[in-house]
Amino acid sequence: MNFTNPLTWIAANANLAFEIIGTLAFAVSGLIEAARKKLDIVGMAMVTGFTAFGGGTLRDILLNRRPFFWVENQFWLWVILAMCAGAMFFMRSRHLEFTERATQWPDALGLGIFAAGGTYIALHSGMPPLVAVLMGVITPVFGGVLRDVVINEIPRAFNDHQPYAALAFVGGWAVVGLDAVQVNQVLTIGLGAIVITGLRLTAMIRGWRLPTWKV
Amino acid sequence: MNFTNPLTWIAANANLAFEIIGTLAFAVSGLIEAARKKLDIVGMAMVTGFTAFGGGTLRDILLNRRPFFWVENQFWLWVILAMCAGAMFFMRSRHLEFTERATQWPDALGLGIFAAGGTYIALHSGMPPLVAVLMGVITPVFGGVLRDVVINEIPRAFNDHQPYAALAFVGGWAVVGLDAVQVNQVLTIGLGAIVITGLRLTAMIRGWRLPTWKV
Amino acid sequence: MNFTNPLTWIAANANLAFEIIGTLAFAVSGLIEAARKKLDIVGMAMVTGFTAFGGGTLRDILLNRRPFFWVENQFWLWVILAMCAGAMFFMRSRHLEFTERATQWPDALGLGIFAAGGTYIALHSGMPPLVAVLMGVITPVFGGVLRDVVINEIPRAFNDHQPYAALAFVGGWAVVGLDAVQVNQVLTIGLGAIVITGLRLTAMIRGWRLPTWKV
Repeated sequence: MNFTNPLTWIAANANLAFEIIGTLAFAVSGLIEAARKKLDIVGMAMVTGFTAFGGGTLRDILLNRRPFFWVENQFWLWVILAMCAGAMFFMRSRHLEFTERATQWPDALGLGIFAAGGTYIALHSGMPPLVAVLMGVITPVFGGVLRDVVINEIPRAFNDHQPYAALAFVGGWAVVGLDAVQVNQVLTIGLGAIVITGLRLTAMIRGWRLPTWKV
Repeated sequence: MNFTNPLTWIAANANLAFEIIGTLAFAVSGLIEAARKKLDIVGMAMVTGFTAFGGGTLRDILLNRRPFFWVENQFWLWVILAMCAGAMFFMRSRHLEFTERATQWPDALGLGIFAAGGTYIALHSGMPPLVAVLMGVITPVFGGVLRDVVINEIPRAFNDHQPYAALAFVGGWAVVGLDAVQVNQVLTIGLGAIVITGLRLTAMIRGWRLPTWKV
Repeated sequence: MNFTNPLTWIAANANLAFEIIGTLAFAVSGLIEAARKKLDIVGMAMVTGFTAFGGGTLRDILLNRRPFFWVENQFWLWVILAMCAGAMFFMRSRHLEFTERATQWPDALGLGIFAAGGTYIALHSGMPPLVAVLMGVITPVFGGVLRDVVINEIPRAFNDHQPYAALAFVGGWAVVGLDAVQVNQVLTIGLGAIVITGLRLTAMIRGWRLPTWKV
């Protein structure tokens, strides 16, 4: 804890809180799809885990970074297992749609935090700007892509015409820009996350859609 | 060969024999699904190879270990190719169901050996206990998961309500426990494998099922 | 540029030109499938990118090589994005079949170049011959496999009974042979590519099919 700069302390802790909220929202989206497909407890735990950690893990494999988040923070794996066990007792199909709508909001936080953070990590692993921005897209998006591939659906991120990955792409350039003018880490990731989450919330409220192509 | 301890020699050779039996059982399960989906010779070889080596390869990518088993033991790749060529001549659809039932037993050996071995390898790569146990689940299970993803099915391990991955998870903790009290490598993996294979055989004979959840 | 040996200069530049042609052909095949599945612009860009770079990236992950082609040559990512944006404006369903047939020819060039190059790279990363040949198969083939897995189809390479991966396998042994007798790099890859592309063109013209198995 840095007493000399309370702002940094608040920002860092807000970041941690948002990261927790985002990870839980991603995990819940895995849990819901697993329930819809009537997977068993093993499938539920696996798909929930993939959805929560798959994007960051793929990014780290591509960047050749170790240890993975879930290796350093084993605690989170217990959370996932507890969620799945709890869901078996308490979640019923009538809850699914409500839960899905309710997690859209924390999910928007996760999108912002993980896209901005992923772009920053990739930039500081020496990636060129466009590659860093793509890593920022992969971090929050590929958990869901893995989830959909495993449950045998075309990834929703690829054909729902909602601006989601596209907003991570746009906001990633904000991170690249802030980093280029040497804004510090907390502020760069924080502002990047605010831009992306803000865009996502606006897209949800206004019902934005990606430009359609007429095949 | 260690003349001072014939038990170690027997255990090590039993391990090798069971590893061969397990790998062949996994490969056969890939071959059968490839035949069911009427893949061509290329698809058969690929799916058979994925099923046999996919789980260990994914574990090694996650642990950043090289060389892979099939790089160090090129011989096994020739075995897979020979199996596929042989199957083209000798296997017919009337053989599939029989072969599948017959390979359930060697498959239980493979589950035990690879889960216990995978957990041990991960522990000694410095992974924390829960992560090591998960690597022990991934090693025997993800070959089949890859097989099912590629042939466009929801992974059987995730929705057949049979205790399989779950038993690898349970038995992995036996490996963690034995290793914590400094039992030697051969005994730790051996006892772990016996626990898991024993549980699996019991599950098959008794018809155990995973607790169902009522969505 | 090597003025002492114009042949090497020509070969190296032909290699580059063919690499560009091959990458574009792979990318177009991703674009076409994305269009067929009516993916949105995000899905189109992702599937096009996977198809173009997925095989080489998987090879490099397996060989633990960095940086990836698309990290070193960021320019190519812009090309993919530009292709997708252009396709949204100009491509219509009536173009798909024609484009697919037209790209068969440059695709055969890509198959040769990337299979021969992939085998050579793997050999010189210390892989044993059979593993190197398999890496040569993975390089041009797994982009398409990833494409098909993501759009929820059984990979065409595994069940269309066309000699494609099988020819990369055959030609890979030519590369292994030439390298064993210490032919230089340019000639080894060049001759290997000519063998594979020649076989592929012959297969296309003569309508060769893989031996069928009667399940």
